[in-house]
Amino acid sequence: MDRSDRLERYAELAVRVGANVGRGQLVEVRANVEHAPLARAIVRSAYQNGARYVQLNYSDNHARRALIEFGPDEALNWSSPWSLRFLHSLESEGGASINIVGDPEPRIFAGLDGAKVGRARPLHYHEVWGRLVGEKAVNWTIIACPTPGWASQVFGEPDVERLWNALETSVRLDEPDPVAAWSDHIDHLVERARLLNERRFDSLRYRGPGTNLSVGLLPSSTWHGGFSNSQAGRRHIANMPTEEVFTSPDRRRAEGVVRSTRPLGLNGALIRDLELTLHDGRVVKVTASSGEDVVRAQMAADPGAQQLGEVALVDAGSRVGQTGLVFFNTLFDENATSHIAYGHGFAFAVSSPTERQAGLSQSAVHTDFMVGAPDIEVDGLTAEGEAVPILREGRFQLD
Amino acid sequence: MDRSDRLERYAELAVRVGANVGRGQLVEVRANVEHAPLARAIVRSAYQNGARYVQLNYSDNHARRALIEFGPDEALNWSSPWSLRFLHSLESEGGASINIVGDPEPRIFAGLDGAKVGRARPLHYHEVWGRLVGEKAVNWTIIACPTPGWASQVFGEPDVERLWNALETSVRLDEPDPVAAWSDHIDHLVERARLLNERRFDSLRYRGPGTNLSVGLLPSSTWHGGFSNSQAGRRHIANMPTEEVFTSPDRRRAEGVVRSTRPLGLNGALIRDLELTLHDGRVVKVTASSGEDVVRAQMAADPGAQQLGEVALVDAGSRVGQTGLVFFNTLFDENATSHIAYGHGFAFAVSSPTERQAGLSQSAVHTDFMVGAPDIEVDGLTAEGEAVPILREGRFQLD
Repeated sequence: MDRSDRLERYAELAVRVGANVGRGQLVEVRANVEHAPLARAIVRSAYQNGARYVQLNYSDNHARRALIEFGPDEALNWSSPWSLRFLHSLESEGGASINIVGDPEPRIFAGLDGAKVGRARPLHYHEVWGRLVGEKAVNWTIIACPTPGWASQVFGEPDVERLWNALETSVRLDEPDPVAAWSDHIDHLVERARLLNERRFDSLRYRGPGTNLSVGLLPSSTWHGGFSNSQAGRRHIANMPTEEVFTSPDRRRAEGVVRSTRPLGLNGALIRDLELTLHDGRVVKVTASSGEDVVRAQMAADPGAQQLGEVALVDAGSRVGQTGLVFFNTLFDENATSHIAYGHGFAFAVSSPTERQAGLSQSAVHTDFMVGAPDIEVDGLTAEGEAVPILREGRFQLD
Repeated sequence: MDRSDRLERYAELAVRVGANVGRGQLVEVRANVEHAPLARAIVRSAYQNGARYVQLNYSDNHARRALIEFGPDEALNWSSPWSLRFLHSLESEGGASINIVGDPEPRIFAGLDGAKVGRARPLHYHEVWGRLVGEKAVNWTIIACPTPGWASQVFGEPDVERLWNALETSVRLDEPDPVAAWSDHIDHLVERARLLNERRFDSLRYRGPGTNLSVGLLPSSTWHGGFSNSQAGRRHIANMPTEEVFTSPDRRRAEGVVRSTRPLGLNGALIRDLELTLHDGRVVKVTASSGEDVVRAQMAADPGAQQLGEVALVDAGSRVGQTGLVFFNTLFDENATSHIAYGHGFAFAVSSPTERQAGLSQSAVHTDFMVGAPDIEVDGLTAEGEAVPILREGRFQLD
């Protein structure tokens, strides 16, 4: 396969299919400095596709480390008025956003106080961004960029080419016509969401080693998958890859224990063997073999951070799952297997305003963690108490 | 000499002596992505020296190239509301700013329309920044970071180490105690400015090959050199290196021809053999063997761009000049030899508000170009018409 135009093809996919940038749109490109080659290709493609202005926002984890290590405490979760002003423009214009992830230096926050690492995130900025997502104000996508540091974390050596290959499979860039392949794939996820919506389950039940959890759904919780539509009617794909169907649950009804099945990268720390105990919808116990303090600090951000905001189902047909890799990256790992998020729920996933008010979690936090595996069974429980298998041995059961 | 702590020592000099960051200040660090290692050291040092928050603003010339090549025309000189909001915070808080220059890819805008390259600069943003500088609202400094691309331009090969050595000499990092060396150097420039202020020249006269220019000064034009004081009383060094004494002239009185003695990097283009003809203070003719269109486009930005905003004298004792190098970088080349700027004048350099109103150039542009050489004589003319030698064979004559 010819790799010379890889960045251009990927950028084109992110701009035209992922965010679906429209003519005359304000476009944000978020990236780490280490992602510059891909970020530049995306900026170019965005202008070629008619962007009125592209704001390239580089972040730098070294600067964040310096903030955590030497900055004043009150700066840790401070949101600058200029960053909020930018979100205001994105909202008022109905802009587009392309966010590039892929940790350039997974060990960069090693040795720092985990509670400070957990807090080091502009809180109000993320609250506003969460609201924009919930209200569908922006057409956006998240993609990833391989780096030597990330490749080392996945493979034990900086084999960037191998990570690119896994990424290309996962985002269907290995297809002769990636745009057509995405169109088919989206149809498939849309159908899966339709099947779930048809059933109107009252709750989900997860069972397997270390996990026995039930999560209540709201009567008007709706399942989504594949594409999203912005207010302005721009059809976009919020995550590339995406293999999930998801909804937001009733924040008041979650009961039991859930054990994470994959490590989780969080604010630059790595969380291993996370286990949450929930009662009356609220996380009452957190344990992890590493990074426990980072999770605790994050959950202390606001009351909503201790409640569930999302449940998502991914089956064994996932291209990401089929790579057999642990990516140490949520965008990939959450699309390899089923996941749950604590924190903010999606306004668009609960159609009744009354139920949204009463039952949807609101938070500046939204953290997905992986709970799926071949030996985890997921059932849908009807209001009458009937249990309907949804996932068995990792396979989706409804049709 | 031990190079292992070079970035840390340089960062410390920029933060403590250059910008002189104070406890609790908002600090901007501006850099190209290619300057990341130095930018990170500066962010770290700024927090260690008490910054309340450091905003690291990375720019990327590849993104700017994409804007020029594929973006809509109206975006070229557009200033985003969020970038203006940032300047507003810098002003209202009395923040600090450290700007890292040093062209990473000198040929990046090759092949583009020079008029568009000249216009591709956020106009209103630079107007506001010029006002903040004039009103001394911010304690700021400009420093440079060697890159392979810049080293290739200077030496014909990417000898970054050699460029670092020239930089270390120029900014006195080769001294055992750079802070003490800067203190002596600043005293020397302050004394030179005092000698010029004592004389109260009515105008300057430049004579040499291709140059015969007189530039009128205002009665209350004051010479500055070495350090600046912000409104809040923070003593800072606006350029590192700095070897100049400078003032702002009467925008209405400049007459004759001036030939630039060094190439000039401008918006990523290289201007060679620039020659300006002035009449009644205004540029009436521009020629150059390369980049003429870039200069013309810049001068078309506003009326003030065609008038002179600064005259600066540098003598042969300059450490930058003594390297014998052409740096293709204004921060260095303007401190190797005398220079003049077209565009914005400095409000603080004209003490009478009435004269400022009538005689000080106002523009979103401020472009320095080099006019000094051993065979260029500079005289001060008194109101009575007496000519007093200021520079002969590159040496400062007043005492």
